[in-house]
Amino acid sequence: MARSKITEKLLAAKQAKGITFEDLEKIVGRDETWIASVIYRQASADLEEATKIVTALGLSESMAEPLTIPPLKGSLEPTIPTDPLIYRFYEIMQVYGMPLKAVIHEKFGDGIMSAIDFTLEVEKVEDPKGDRVQVSMCGKFLPYKKW
Amino acid sequence: MARSKITEKLLAAKQAKGITFEDLEKIVGRDETWIASVIYRQASADLEEATKIVTALGLSESMAEPLTIPPLKGSLEPTIPTDPLIYRFYEIMQVYGMPLKAVIHEKFGDGIMSAIDFTLEVEKVEDPKGDRVQVSMCGKFLPYKKW
Amino acid sequence: MARSKITEKLLAAKQAKGITFEDLEKIVGRDETWIASVIYRQASADLEEATKIVTALGLSESMAEPLTIPPLKGSLEPTIPTDPLIYRFYEIMQVYGMPLKAVIHEKFGDGIMSAIDFTLEVEKVEDPKGDRVQVSMCGKFLPYKKW
Amino acid sequence: MARSKITEKLLAAKQAKGITFEDLEKIVGRDETWIASVIYRQASADLEEATKIVTALGLSESMAEPLTIPPLKGSLEPTIPTDPLIYRFYEIMQVYGMPLKAVIHEKFGDGIMSAIDFTLEVEKVEDPKGDRVQVSMCGKFLPYKKW
Amino acid sequence: MARSKITEKLLAAKQAKGITFEDLEKIVGRDETWIASVIYRQASADLEEATKIVTALGLSESMAEPLTIPPLKGSLEPTIPTDPLIYRFYEIMQVYGMPLKAVIHEKFGDGIMSAIDFTLEVEKVEDPKGDRVQVSMCGKFLPYKKW
Amino acid sequence: MARSKITEKLLAAKQAKGITFEDLEKIVGRDETWIASVIYRQASADLEEATKIVTALGLSESMAEPLTIPPLKGSLEPTIPTDPLIYRFYEIMQVYGMPLKAVIHEKFGDGIMSAIDFTLEVEKVEDPKGDRVQVSMCGKFLPYKKW
Amino acid sequence: MARSKITEKLLAAKQAKGITFEDLEKIVGRDETWIASVIYRQASADLEEATKIVTALGLSESMAEPLTIPPLKGSLEPTIPTDPLIYRFYEIMQVYGMPLKAVIHEKFGDGIMSAIDFTLEVEKVEDPKGDRVQVSMCGKFLPYKKW
Amino acid sequence: MARSKITEKLLAAKQAKGITFEDLEKIVGRDETWIASVIYRQASADLEEATKIVTALGLSESMAEPLTIPPLKGSLEPTIPTDPLIYRFYEIMQVYGMPLKAVIHEKFGDGIMSAIDFTLEVEKVEDPKGDRVQVSMCGKFLPYKKW
Amino acid sequence: MARSKITEKLLAAKQAKGITFEDLEKIVGRDETWIASVIYRQASADLEEATKIVTALGLSESMAEPLTIPPLKGSLEPTIPTDPLIYRFYEIMQVYGMPLKAVIHEKFGDGIMSAIDFTLEVEKVEDPKGDRVQVSMCGKFLPYKKW
Amino acid sequence: MARSKITEKLLAAKQAKGITFEDLEKIVGRDETWIASVIYRQASADLEEATKIVTALGLSESMAEPLTIPPLKGSLEPTIPTDPLIYRFYEIMQVYGMPLKAVIHEKFGDGIMSAIDFTLEVEKVEDPKGDRVQVSMCGKFLPYKKW
Repeated sequence: MARSKITEKLLAAKQAKGITFEDLEKIVGRDETWIASVIYRQASADLEEATKIVTALGLSESMAEPLTIPPLKGSLEPTIPTDPLIYRFYEIMQVYGMPLKAVIHEKFGDGIMSAIDFTLEVEKVEDPKGDRVQVSMCGKFLPYKKW
Repeated sequence: MARSKITEKLLAAKQAKGITFEDLEKIVGRDETWIASVIYRQASADLEEATKIVTALGLSESMAEPLTIPPLKGSLEPTIPTDPLIYRFYEIMQVYGMPLKAVIHEKFGDGIMSAIDFTLEVEKVEDPKGDRVQVSMCGKFLPYKKW
Repeated sequence: MARSKITEKLLAAKQAKGITFEDLEKIVGRDETWIASVIYRQASADLEEATKIVTALGLSESMAEPLTIPPLKGSLEPTIPTDPLIYRFYEIMQVYGMPLKAVIHEKFGDGIMSAIDFTLEVEKVEDPKGDRVQVSMCGKFLPYKKW
Repeated sequence: MARSKITEKLLAAKQAKGITFEDLEKIVGRDETWIASVIYRQASADLEEATKIVTALGLSESMAEPLTIPPLKGSLEPTIPTDPLIYRFYEIMQVYGMPLKAVIHEKFGDGIMSAIDFTLEVEKVEDPKGDRVQVSMCGKFLPYKKW
Repeated sequence: MARSKITEKLLAAKQAKGITFEDLEKIVGRDETWIASVIYRQASADLEEATKIVTALGLSESMAEPLTIPPLKGSLEPTIPTDPLIYRFYEIMQVYGMPLKAVIHEKFGDGIMSAIDFTLEVEKVEDPKGDRVQVSMCGKFLPYKKW
Repeated sequence: MARSKITEKLLAAKQAKGITFEDLEKIVGRDETWIASVIYRQASADLEEATKIVTALGLSESMAEPLTIPPLKGSLEPTIPTDPLIYRFYEIMQVYGMPLKAVIHEKFGDGIMSAIDFTLEVEKVEDPKGDRVQVSMCGKFLPYKKW
Repeated sequence: MARSKITEKLLAAKQAKGITFEDLEKIVGRDETWIASVIYRQASADLEEATKIVTALGLSESMAEPLTIPPLKGSLEPTIPTDPLIYRFYEIMQVYGMPLKAVIHEKFGDGIMSAIDFTLEVEKVEDPKGDRVQVSMCGKFLPYKKW
Repeated sequence: MARSKITEKLLAAKQAKGITFEDLEKIVGRDETWIASVIYRQASADLEEATKIVTALGLSESMAEPLTIPPLKGSLEPTIPTDPLIYRFYEIMQVYGMPLKAVIHEKFGDGIMSAIDFTLEVEKVEDPKGDRVQVSMCGKFLPYKKW
Repeated sequence: MARSKITEKLLAAKQAKGITFEDLEKIVGRDETWIASVIYRQASADLEEATKIVTALGLSESMAEPLTIPPLKGSLEPTIPTDPLIYRFYEIMQVYGMPLKAVIHEKFGDGIMSAIDFTLEVEKVEDPKGDRVQVSMCGKFLPYKKW
Repeated sequence: MARSKITEKLLAAKQAKGITFEDLEKIVGRDETWIASVIYRQASADLEEATKIVTALGLSESMAEPLTIPPLKGSLEPTIPTDPLIYRFYEIMQVYGMPLKAVIHEKFGDGIMSAIDFTLEVEKVEDPKGDRVQVSMCGKFLPYKKW
């Protein structure tokens, strides 16, 4: 993913200020993963949220407006991501995609989990055998419409 | 994913018997998504678990052993899945992959969420505005080893 | 798209009986494109609808049940379709995708047109300079959820 | 789609002026989606239309001429688009391509819907359960010539 | 291109009977390349034409009807053909595509050469330095519609 | 096809001067499509031809020499072109490739039509039902050598 | 490369009879690599050559005719071959393609080495440090035609 | 192949000086194809050879050192080359790859022709029917090691 | 990797007999990974080794000969493997490929590690924090030949 | 792999100083391959290690911090690497991937070798018949978790 110049500036400011996504969560009142998505130009904020983000990062308010425009989303550069952390999510879909499909259809009928009316959260679960990453996805079930 | 003949037989038996993955969860004592993964030959059971599954489906015990062999995993046929339900997980990785990476690194340092020491659960969250699909992934954080 | 055996049988019966999709629309009380989607195993019917379809085609009622199972959707064989009729829809997306995105975002904000809560109709518009194909797509607008 | 510099300038001017595609529709006397296509360099205008567009955006008339040159069309960067809004049109073709083909051939015989002698309109359909996006495509039917 | 069984049968009969495409041209009253396209299931004939073809090949009339159904066209197996004769047409498009585009736009304006309202003929041009293959393509110019 | 800087300059000069490829054909004494191929750096001219071209475009003679160097040919950017005009030639190969192969082999034996000892011409055929684009390809037949 | 059934039979007969390609070279009076190409259905023989081949392999003469039909050539299954021996030829083209192009153009001007009017021979060069494989390709130079 | 800046400079100097690869062969005492490979950064020279090359091209000696560093080899830009001269080598591998493999295995056993302990030469073979390009590849046979 | 029928039979016999690769190592006197490679038809044995393998698996000696023929190697079905165990080796090459290249060139000069004159061993390294897989690759360094 | 600017600077400094990876190993107290991975931005160091590296290369300490940020890993430019040295590791996976999988599963059960909790070392093994490259990979075995 070629980071846009906006993303570059925001990340550089964040690094310089030493602010974490968790800090931003408290300031903006939205989940840190969503805020990271705004910064990576995968989600769009409203002007108030955007202003809070850029102000917290010590940037001029004029940088807020671009964060409100619906971005061209996606486009990790290689079709199949090569970064190991991101690849694991591709692998999960390759390995568990069909079982997930079967279980969801059995529970809900024909339709999908929305990736739009959708939330995504990350938590650290401490564990003496090694901490665990808990990723929670929650999307509205959309049944196929008949017509 | 060209379903193997074993998967075909197990699914046909399951359909004929009218047993759900949830029923199997109660019988086998394992999560229904994992059981579905065994049936789709993406995970391997031990002989006791495999026998419980095939027996519950009314099949001969000789069908249990193949479920214990580590399978060749993955390989949904098109590289990028075209089934809308499965595609949404690819989209989530395309859109939210970089933000997830940023948040996980911030919380844990350099490393990944394991997709092997990993659990995956699906739940139905009832909601008057439309039920929601809750997918919970929980994988051990593996820090990059230095040497 | 390797037509499944079920699709093969239904299409052969339809051809033999000389029934059109429009005839099926009257019998089933659903749009002909949706019915074609059921026959091509891209949509799932309920048992009553499925029974009407197979009966109209002169087939045994036992063929109705498979039409009620959520199918593995998509998967035209080449990633970019080579059939000229189908390719034109790929071309429309390639050429008009960005303008459409801009207009939809301007009218609705950040979000998408659902392809699930969605209808698709085809009509013949007679025209002395050459009849026209009218394709109408109508999908619910799904705004991106923030969290 | 790497936006050409021309497109960049036009979009920046449009954003700065606060003009919508709908406003341009009224000024130019052409549909807003077509105008968006000209701005994204997917369609070519005549000099009068082009001049109206650039003038409305507050730009110098010398910017009109490039909009009259037949562009190199298409080329969204990834072969399969990753932007969720645009992807849905790819999904529609994957899922409904064969049914559409069957219905169109039945209604018209062997041939295609032209994507050249073609119009494309977007409308907002208000709906208490959630507004809907209505996309209307209308292309001349072109029967295969025999020779 | 996996030859369909129909194509296999027709080609085998043609080989056995020792009939050339040129002979078929005289019998059917259509160009030999078009007839070859019908036999390869890339074009559809009407019942009279189809009957002439199968009869000339010494096959039963019941084989005529399948030749009248609009086929799923295209799909040479590798996306970029490896057969040297067919590849040369891909090469011509790669090398001369942009110059052709420039010349056609200059002569006709923005639009395309139809590949549907289109004829394709092959002739042998005798030449003492080595015979030449003359391929003539003639398609209707379709100007882009504005709306 | 990322146009080389040379091509950019030549096309800009051509546009500024208002010279057509047909004008160049008269000046250079070569077919306009071939001249367009030289300008797009897909063919190489000799110094005399190159000088005529750059002079006609009002450019300095020093620009002639680069047009005499054998270029790296081909490389339209997407493997399968997305520009509709160029795509049609890909479609023709996909749909008519096998029939063409069959007819050429029948007329000439095993071998190919050369794309090197080859000419390519475009003509406008006026037609009251809509003008037609006539593309004539003529390549030497090369029989496979045995050894 | 999915070996055709013909190729399978010829290779099985060759293995059973213990005949080498070199033996066939003596019997047929053609180079062993060309004969191997006929057996792999990449080249077509005349009836006399084909009869010599099948007779030498102890097969019925009726197997000769298929070897005279121009085959659909190429199509190693993966686009980039994975077999190490064959891959090395791909690697040679990747690494030495541009230098070869430069040297050939310098020696011959703009054009190509024909892969049709072409011979290919393999020889064993004994060497105390390890025998060497000598592959000799010799193709007619085809200069680009101007028109 | 995006030519590196070093290659660009060397080729420009060579063009300006009017030196051929054959001239360089005499000066450096290595084959011209190998020298071309060094210039295209596909092979690495030692400092003496590199100095001879850059000096012969009239460049400063400081340009010699970069030619001694093992380069990142390969990477013609499109996976399958579109330049007709280079493509022919891909075609040769597609068409003659399997026959070559069969002949080499028969002569040498299981193993490969090295593309590293390997030489590549080009010669012009004059011929009244048209000069021929002779490409000679000679690589050490490497038998598969057992362990 | 579509397992050949030979591989299928050998693996089934091995499973039925309950013999491990380690047992075969003792019987054949070759490393177990190499033996597994013979069984998967990626390496070829001599007749004596092959006979030991098939005999140990309780199969008829006539199954030994096919194991002596140089196989068409490689061709895991998806270009990028989706099986998690195999994928990790692709990931290692993606992540560590360039560093490895740099270190090897520094130690050895320009050349490669042979994958032909090559051995590959797997060992289990017991470790209280979790056992480790030790994969040892050892290939002859092949310096690039100059000519 | 487009080398980042940081990598470019570090490598240039290393070349200018004439320091080897082995020298760095002694200075930093970490394996040279791991250090090369840090320099190629595939691994992240802590600040102390990073400072040692940049200081050893004679660079300012401010260059150390970027080396501590978890990088976007992978992304060799072509999906299948064309550099011969790197390709051999892809070939090893293609040819020996399935046998490795079989041997590892037999030794350890269902699971994978971690590429994260993983070390990679290169050694030169002197050998009179030609030195050998010894690559040792050692990763923790991760058994698939059941849930």
